[in-house]
Amino acid sequence: MRGPYIGVIGTGESDPGLDDMAVAVGREVARRGGVLVCGGLGGVMTAAALGAKEEGGFTVGILPGSHVEDANHFIDFPIASNMGQARNAIIVQTAHVLIAVGGGYGTLSEIAMALKMGKKVVALHPEFEIPGVRSAQSPAEAVSLAYQLIEAPADIVV
Amino acid sequence: MRGPYIGVIGTGESDPGLDDMAVAVGREVARRGGVLVCGGLGGVMTAAALGAKEEGGFTVGILPGSHVEDANHFIDFPIASNMGQARNAIIVQTAHVLIAVGGGYGTLSEIAMALKMGKKVVALHPEFEIPGVRSAQSPAEAVSLAYQLIEAPADIVV
Amino acid sequence: MRGPYIGVIGTGESDPGLDDMAVAVGREVARRGGVLVCGGLGGVMTAAALGAKEEGGFTVGILPGSHVEDANHFIDFPIASNMGQARNAIIVQTAHVLIAVGGGYGTLSEIAMALKMGKKVVALHPEFEIPGVRSAQSPAEAVSLAYQLIEAPADIVV
Amino acid sequence: MRGPYIGVIGTGESDPGLDDMAVAVGREVARRGGVLVCGGLGGVMTAAALGAKEEGGFTVGILPGSHVEDANHFIDFPIASNMGQARNAIIVQTAHVLIAVGGGYGTLSEIAMALKMGKKVVALHPEFEIPGVRSAQSPAEAVSLAYQLIEAPADIVV
Repeated sequence: MRGPYIGVIGTGESDPGLDDMAVAVGREVARRGGVLVCGGLGGVMTAAALGAKEEGGFTVGILPGSHVEDANHFIDFPIASNMGQARNAIIVQTAHVLIAVGGGYGTLSEIAMALKMGKKVVALHPEFEIPGVRSAQSPAEAVSLAYQLIEAPADIVV
Repeated sequence: MRGPYIGVIGTGESDPGLDDMAVAVGREVARRGGVLVCGGLGGVMTAAALGAKEEGGFTVGILPGSHVEDANHFIDFPIASNMGQARNAIIVQTAHVLIAVGGGYGTLSEIAMALKMGKKVVALHPEFEIPGVRSAQSPAEAVSLAYQLIEAPADIVV
Repeated sequence: MRGPYIGVIGTGESDPGLDDMAVAVGREVARRGGVLVCGGLGGVMTAAALGAKEEGGFTVGILPGSHVEDANHFIDFPIASNMGQARNAIIVQTAHVLIAVGGGYGTLSEIAMALKMGKKVVALHPEFEIPGVRSAQSPAEAVSLAYQLIEAPADIVV
Repeated sequence: MRGPYIGVIGTGESDPGLDDMAVAVGREVARRGGVLVCGGLGGVMTAAALGAKEEGGFTVGILPGSHVEDANHFIDFPIASNMGQARNAIIVQTAHVLIAVGGGYGTLSEIAMALKMGKKVVALHPEFEIPGVRSAQSPAEAVSLAYQLIEAPADIVV
């Protein structure tokens, strides 16, 4: 398989500051050869996918609805889950590590589910303080940290 | 339909203090004629269902696995989702209001998903502070508050 | 748990002949103490649930959508899967045995999934001939056969 | 998005005759620029993905389990649904058209679900005769027919 899979999660509403961060995360994921996995819709999901495509990376979008055409324009491989919010579980299961960019209740739900499943989560500009989540100060640091958490899962205590 | 549906969520690990609270919540839900909806397994789920059955209430358990026989002994109507953690979305969608009793990452994930879907959540002994969640000091207050949040959803600002 | 769970599957469109059969199936399931599990909507699902309620039985409806209020009026315990057609898998997993009343592609899909999962299926007035499905000539025979298939699963070669 | 998405469904058990057909289907899908979508496991799924990779195509595998590492070696983009058989619904929703190669109950379930959802299905060496399914005599004809069914969905009466 291509990869590793870097899950990028965050709000579906556009926000200039968060979108800039997400674009930078997407670029860095692609530069390192990672596959971007996200929810396939707007806001952080669009921005991260745009960044990944600028650097020639691959993007996968797990959609809440039943039409692959609903994916944003930067998704190479949309998946039509037709499960609504429950599709977040598929994003978390599929990703090797997750990067949260801002985010409200939906993102919080994904972060908590990831931690419940034993997946590592890096947060950029988090809205909530959740024990077990690693904080990063910049997109580059977030991606770098995410890769470390994949490569040495047993050595790093989160 | 029977109801309303009161979702009770919390850890699957047994904890004497939380279990006592969950039993009391289950009893009070049944006394008021509510149907208890939960994840169908151990810990808070077993305790709440036991309480509901003591008072002659009905209990529904949305299981993560594929065998209805895996439900705890106090579940009248087990549902075999075979979706793992994603079954939390079904609990949240099915319930009219949720009561969280303690709880770790899995419960946090359900609370956040509920808030994302616009459902009200009452917390007893919460592990995390999440804006939008109503706190209760006792099982009786939690159930009373939950019923108020169903009956006057538009009037009460959470 | 209450039970056994008898899954009744069939078209969501109303058809007088099929509806009469489904009502009779529902009545007989309830008389024997079975819990009726179905998709919770119209046609055969409504008719079977109506029959079960006439005899004081319990009914569970696994809905494709996200609102429990969408269940037909004879469902005691609706479940809001929000998974569309994929909810058929939950019906099949949850039921101990299935009775198909007529039915088009959706029912065929459920029958095939049940056989794939090793569950037994009894058909009344089938539209398709599928090897492994047991045929019944009347609602009473269908329910009787379904109960035999639960009670002696290892002895009966389908 | 890349595409169109051609869903290839069939048994997970290896069968020399069916596997040869599936390899040829996969090759032809890739030659035409289609993306192969399948269940990501063995038998027809492995053979079709192998064929697609031989011709430089992309392959997506919607897995029943929760580990992307369970995908066969020819899957570029595995998705960990953790939904068991219910993942078949995601394959059907995601694909623009489906090609069934042989297949038992699981494949029959997917075919029926596809027809229920209004998707077109082409069958090679079908085990069951299902009205609405188009038959093909060779892998090349199957893929050619599948493409026609995408390109002129309103004009072709199935």
